Amino acid sequence: MPTFRHERPWVITTVRVPYGHVDKMDHVYYGNYLLYFEMARNEWMRAGGLTYKDFEALGFMVPVVEAHVRYRGRVRYDDLIEIRAAVKPEGRTRLRFLYEIRRSGEEEVLTTGSSVHVVTDLEGRPQRMPKGLSDLLERIGVYEGPDPG
Amino acid sequence: MPTFRHERPWVITTVRVPYGHVDKMDHVYYGNYLLYFEMARNEWMRAGGLTYKDFEALGFMVPVVEAHVRYRGRVRYDDLIEIRAAVKPEGRTRLRFLYEIRRSGEEEVLTTGSSVHVVTDLEGRPQRMPKGLSDLLERIGVYEGPDPG
Amino acid sequence: MPTFRHERPWVITTVRVPYGHVDKMDHVYYGNYLLYFEMARNEWMRAGGLTYKDFEALGFMVPVVEAHVRYRGRVRYDDLIEIRAAVKPEGRTRLRFLYEIRRSGEEEVLTTGSSVHVVTDLEGRPQRMPKGLSDLLERIGVYEGPDPG
Amino acid sequence: MPTFRHERPWVITTVRVPYGHVDKMDHVYYGNYLLYFEMARNEWMRAGGLTYKDFEALGFMVPVVEAHVRYRGRVRYDDLIEIRAAVKPEGRTRLRFLYEIRRSGEEEVLTTGSSVHVVTDLEGRPQRMPKGLSDLLERIGVYEGPDPG
Repeated sequence: MPTFRHERPWVITTVRVPYGHVDKMDHVYYGNYLLYFEMARNEWMRAGGLTYKDFEALGFMVPVVEAHVRYRGRVRYDDLIEIRAAVKPEGRTRLRFLYEIRRSGEEEVLTTGSSVHVVTDLEGRPQRMPKGLSDLLERIGVYEGPDPG
Repeated sequence: MPTFRHERPWVITTVRVPYGHVDKMDHVYYGNYLLYFEMARNEWMRAGGLTYKDFEALGFMVPVVEAHVRYRGRVRYDDLIEIRAAVKPEGRTRLRFLYEIRRSGEEEVLTTGSSVHVVTDLEGRPQRMPKGLSDLLERIGVYEGPDPG
Repeated sequence: MPTFRHERPWVITTVRVPYGHVDKMDHVYYGNYLLYFEMARNEWMRAGGLTYKDFEALGFMVPVVEAHVRYRGRVRYDDLIEIRAAVKPEGRTRLRFLYEIRRSGEEEVLTTGSSVHVVTDLEGRPQRMPKGLSDLLERIGVYEGPDPG
Repeated sequence: MPTFRHERPWVITTVRVPYGHVDKMDHVYYGNYLLYFEMARNEWMRAGGLTYKDFEALGFMVPVVEAHVRYRGRVRYDDLIEIRAAVKPEGRTRLRFLYEIRRSGEEEVLTTGSSVHVVTDLEGRPQRMPKGLSDLLERIGVYEGPDPG
């Protein structure tokens, strides 16, 4: 799975929708998009040469404090989808991830969303962004446009 | 499970958090709150004497178009939580559900959120709110304060 | 939720099936039954006056080594189901949980299953059953018939 | 994701374990393996030039009647795993899928399992295996050894 492409500042993760993720209308269940967003965050980090696991091993976490999803079109069983993720830093301790989901090879945006994360130590105390993370942002690029909402 | 109480305009659903819902930090995984919100919507409807299943049988759906969650405190494995849900109609075709999660018997709000739903027919075409639903809103009561966000 | 009844040696947990648990055939997705079995194990323990959380706090775990499910009938969205759980000890270090799922108030068994667990310390090393657990088995009762398979 | 390799009669699917799939011990939650098995079945079919979606469009289903899992080793967050799936026909109307999970590039088998499926029409009535499916079995190959259990 988590094969990704990097198109600065976006990292693009491809996922095949399993039967277990759709509801009886053959739509991806609305909560499962947050799993796809998480897969995209994992690959975003990997694109910059780090893993979230490494990041935890360095004594940091980035717990989520907000999540938002807009459901625009239908994502169905067995669809091959692309989840684009980019980051917009908010001050020195917060990151906003932006997401867009499309069917692979199509233009129409089916889902958009964002999530806000705080940099903390392993006890959950807010921390300034460590150098490993700001270097990562530089390597991957940051989103500078308006929130695509 | 889904036993509920009605405290106009809130309907309160009680859920015990299973092991399968928490992540390796012993927090409920961020996507699973949307499942709790759905459980609360089901019981909200039942509190008004209808089920979502009945509603579908009448030829209507209320698909979700937006969801928002704010993670304020920790919800852990085996916590008994209360999910409060209330509705704020938005025009004639949209409903905003508001949610608050607390540990049973405690004051602190651990999670808040909202979701926006459109009334449609079974093909997904927007419809005016059917009488069954507006009667339900009257019986349960509608939320009239500011968005508790 | 997890309200339970105790009918020696069975502990019975009631769950309302959410939309997010069924697939596009309006069947509970086959993996979600293992969540229901877990909910039933949690309440089984609680029926004996202990929680799995307490049990972990005492330095023990009961990780699963096998799980089996037989899908006999349809469980659908919004069904109120009863999950019966009982335990059959296997030697001094293993427990087999047996499960049966019915719609509340109906006779027909829709799902059966079992899972085998090993008593270990927190590092995963097999341990003899601690007194807390064997006392619990006595209070709740053990299943002595043939595997209901 | 679901990229696959075919090593007659096995089809091998690669999955990266997300945070949302592990429990507080940093093990994949025991029910989530059934999702991995389903992903492997989807790719098994695709390896033979068909999709389960096509198969449904032809008027057939293969609902699951049994599932079995043996948890042998730990699968953790961010592990890249390979799920091998092969089929052993059981008479003219049933298929047994066999599964093995390893970390990518490692020998140790971490999980094994099987699931039994019945060929039915869309109303759930048992059917003989359609030609499309028996051709598929020939192209992919069938497992002829003992159940690897």
